[in-house]
Amino acid sequence: MNGAQALIRTLVASGVDTCFTNPGTSEMHFVAALDTVPEMRAILGLFEGVVSGAADGYARMSDTPAATLLHLGSGLGNGLANLHNARRARVPVVNIVGDHATYHLPLDAPLTSDIPAIARGVSSWVWTSESPAEIGGDAAAAVAAAHGPPAQVATLILPADVSWGDGAEPAPPAKVESPTAVSESTVAEIAKILRTSEPAALLLGGRVLRRPGLEAAGRVAHVTGAQMLAETFPTRLERGAGLPAVSRLGYLAEFVEMQLAGVRHLVLVDAKAPVSFFAYPGKASDLVPEHCTVHVLSGAAEDGVAALEALAETVGAGPEGATGSAAPRPEIPPGPLTADSVAAVLGALLPDDAIVSDESNTSSLSLGAMTAGAPPHDWLALTGGAIGQGMPVATGAAVASPGRPVVNLESDGSAMYTLQSLWTQAREGLDVTTIIYNNRSYAILNLELSRVGAESGEKARALFDLSSPPLDFVALAQGMGVPATRAQTTDELTTQLRQAFAEDGPHLVEALVPSIV
Amino acid sequence: MNGAQALIRTLVASGVDTCFTNPGTSEMHFVAALDTVPEMRAILGLFEGVVSGAADGYARMSDTPAATLLHLGSGLGNGLANLHNARRARVPVVNIVGDHATYHLPLDAPLTSDIPAIARGVSSWVWTSESPAEIGGDAAAAVAAAHGPPAQVATLILPADVSWGDGAEPAPPAKVESPTAVSESTVAEIAKILRTSEPAALLLGGRVLRRPGLEAAGRVAHVTGAQMLAETFPTRLERGAGLPAVSRLGYLAEFVEMQLAGVRHLVLVDAKAPVSFFAYPGKASDLVPEHCTVHVLSGAAEDGVAALEALAETVGAGPEGATGSAAPRPEIPPGPLTADSVAAVLGALLPDDAIVSDESNTSSLSLGAMTAGAPPHDWLALTGGAIGQGMPVATGAAVASPGRPVVNLESDGSAMYTLQSLWTQAREGLDVTTIIYNNRSYAILNLELSRVGAESGEKARALFDLSSPPLDFVALAQGMGVPATRAQTTDELTTQLRQAFAEDGPHLVEALVPSIV
Repeated sequence: MNGAQALIRTLVASGVDTCFTNPGTSEMHFVAALDTVPEMRAILGLFEGVVSGAADGYARMSDTPAATLLHLGSGLGNGLANLHNARRARVPVVNIVGDHATYHLPLDAPLTSDIPAIARGVSSWVWTSESPAEIGGDAAAAVAAAHGPPAQVATLILPADVSWGDGAEPAPPAKVESPTAVSESTVAEIAKILRTSEPAALLLGGRVLRRPGLEAAGRVAHVTGAQMLAETFPTRLERGAGLPAVSRLGYLAEFVEMQLAGVRHLVLVDAKAPVSFFAYPGKASDLVPEHCTVHVLSGAAEDGVAALEALAETVGAGPEGATGSAAPRPEIPPGPLTADSVAAVLGALLPDDAIVSDESNTSSLSLGAMTAGAPPHDWLALTGGAIGQGMPVATGAAVASPGRPVVNLESDGSAMYTLQSLWTQAREGLDVTTIIYNNRSYAILNLELSRVGAESGEKARALFDLSSPPLDFVALAQGMGVPATRAQTTDELTTQLRQAFAEDGPHLVEALVPSIV
Repeated sequence: MNGAQALIRTLVASGVDTCFTNPGTSEMHFVAALDTVPEMRAILGLFEGVVSGAADGYARMSDTPAATLLHLGSGLGNGLANLHNARRARVPVVNIVGDHATYHLPLDAPLTSDIPAIARGVSSWVWTSESPAEIGGDAAAAVAAAHGPPAQVATLILPADVSWGDGAEPAPPAKVESPTAVSESTVAEIAKILRTSEPAALLLGGRVLRRPGLEAAGRVAHVTGAQMLAETFPTRLERGAGLPAVSRLGYLAEFVEMQLAGVRHLVLVDAKAPVSFFAYPGKASDLVPEHCTVHVLSGAAEDGVAALEALAETVGAGPEGATGSAAPRPEIPPGPLTADSVAAVLGALLPDDAIVSDESNTSSLSLGAMTAGAPPHDWLALTGGAIGQGMPVATGAAVASPGRPVVNLESDGSAMYTLQSLWTQAREGLDVTTIIYNNRSYAILNLELSRVGAESGEKARALFDLSSPPLDFVALAQGMGVPATRAQTTDELTTQLRQAFAEDGPHLVEALVPSIV
């Protein structure tokens, strides 16, 4: 058995049975070996940013790593931004990067580059397999490292001669560690703080934002009066009718200051203390209020859900708070589309059990309120701030969740980063409905330009203008085999979305909206 | 004056007056400062791979670095593959990467990453500016480092607070070093070798492949009988009617072996000794024949053209050989398009003084022969093997060369990497005619799969198949504002190319061709 076969068999035995890829010559034996292991599904992306972002989306929905297969340092580089986002999402990914044969590397052939150096920026576990005899064990170690806890991007570098070399054997499945239990004393300490009359907030992140964590947090909040907050850009937030409501921290520092005003105790549950996304001249970067103390209930490697359940017991919480109050679904307003009216249409029409991949950026402001009463759904956000993540994440989430409708809310500027995702959606017949908010600008940069206090002129503003020439997303989608329509009114959007939701396979609706800036 | 203003003024004073960019919040003060320095032109790309590849194309045609302006580690990552290609092209690029404010970095905000680590893979000069007082000098040092010699990608990291901080001043213009002269003794030694009767070849690369270097090499070859070879993927090769003919080394090791068979002395002139692009089981990686000795006339930091001229004098060369024999322009064959018939049409129609950006990959085989008699033109190749380079390079070359027609020969699979280039071409009104060879496959990988000796099945081959769904490049181009047509016969291609060449601004022609594999 060659190294590639042992690698794939070990991955499959360890629960990794999906591989997103754009391979090259140095990965040919891995590609050939796919036919010898029928359990491994291989999904092609036309660009590595699609590949790495799809692995992120897949992991968010399955809690299991997908493998990537990338071509050398350049393929890794192309996938780097979405691996960065995956790192910030703290999801498991087994990132496999092909390299030249070990004896070919010193020749410095044109595609040679320093793969470990590039990988380390997004991956704290980086390993180069040295022989066919070791590749099975290395693969199992990569899967274990990816799971963590905390989950992470684990990068396994696969030299071509390790891949094609004989004498390899699959290793036993990866041993996946469970998260550590939070100590009783920590729970007791937090309980004591929450029982005081001082204003407190629970800041929830990571896997705590699924139903079990939210129910436990809701019970704690109900009995103690603590606020329930979520990190700004959640990896996966379960929300909608019947789920306890949680307010996401704002993107703008000014919003966070209002949300945290008066809070004396901020309890972190698998979340980090809030910092400003960017620095601004004369504004604070650390957003914890002056008289607020930060406490940690659970860290990234700990079982935050169990800790919240123990906390609920300790503070004597009953079942109250585990269920959210019913929010009404919005009426659809007539008239031209705006970011707000798109949100109303979506709130009215969002299908049961949907997955929303949200990269709507400045068009997102009223989405939370408008979809609060929609049937329960998962909300996947732009975790690391590197744009071009929404479409690949939608793609990977759909692969992981057959039967569930995926809705991708996508800004025009961000869409153009990894638009090739649409082709993979068409090829795989994925049930993804993409709504492009086309405001013909990098609206967020117009906003940020004023916020940083820079005086701007014509040349500066021209760099945020996407109107000349206007992007025609209907043509772009059709060019990749995805049926597409354009909407300018809520009536048109309603009709088009109903049809997209009713039909299987991918659809794209281009919503022409004014910029909010 | 703030840091950003001092930076831009220093760049302009040092001859860097074009900036390709996709900026973000941390680069806002640089963006704002553009309006205070009218000499600096800023060109927006919808993706950083376009930005970095355009800087490469610009440098190939102008021998002057453009600046990039990239957003943090993720923007750099997106630009990495084409920076790798620029590194392999040995062109000057001043790569400016914005970073968080220095005091914001330790907070590990979502977009924080290790920018120097990512940059070092493509850039041997990496510097983080530490204060507004230093940014002017840092900018001049970056320009000097980019010029080399040898030319390189120089990366200057610009923290946001250095950009917005006051008290900065422009520095004196960068001092650009000239290449070192090759010693007389080296020239004499090479001359002695070429005067023996043993078969010899000159392997030319880098800037030696322009007219002056080729003329000198042609004279040497004429009098000594040495072969004239060029590196496989030249940065910029001047060729066509009247220029001395030079054979490019093949991509496939088997071809190189034939080209070098019997050569006893291989003289490198700004080129590296040939190695195989990839390793293959049981095949050689080092392609220098067994009984061949490698000699170096000039290295990357030396003046190869002057060395060749001195060599011509030393071997007593006359003017003969400085001019190539006239090759006829091909007849246009009737019938359906193939890679070969596209080459014939191009050879017949290539406009005067054209620049060809070639990423046609497996469709390229007969291009060299068919265009040998075309009017003199520049040929820009895929230097580093990271696909997605042809369209950005065409874009940057057009920016650097107003008035010259640019022709981009582009494979379907490679086109989908950085297709966003078309939008920049439309926005800037660049005279680029793109010919997409759409064979609906990663044909080169089908070829490589058989060459690596891997047994392939249905799943493997499916990963190289781009037919389901088929990509519609006419729709994709129109979606980005570029007029586009589709050709299936040489008649159609002829009509469409004539029109594209006659009209200003970008055009795209999709040529449906069968795969050669």
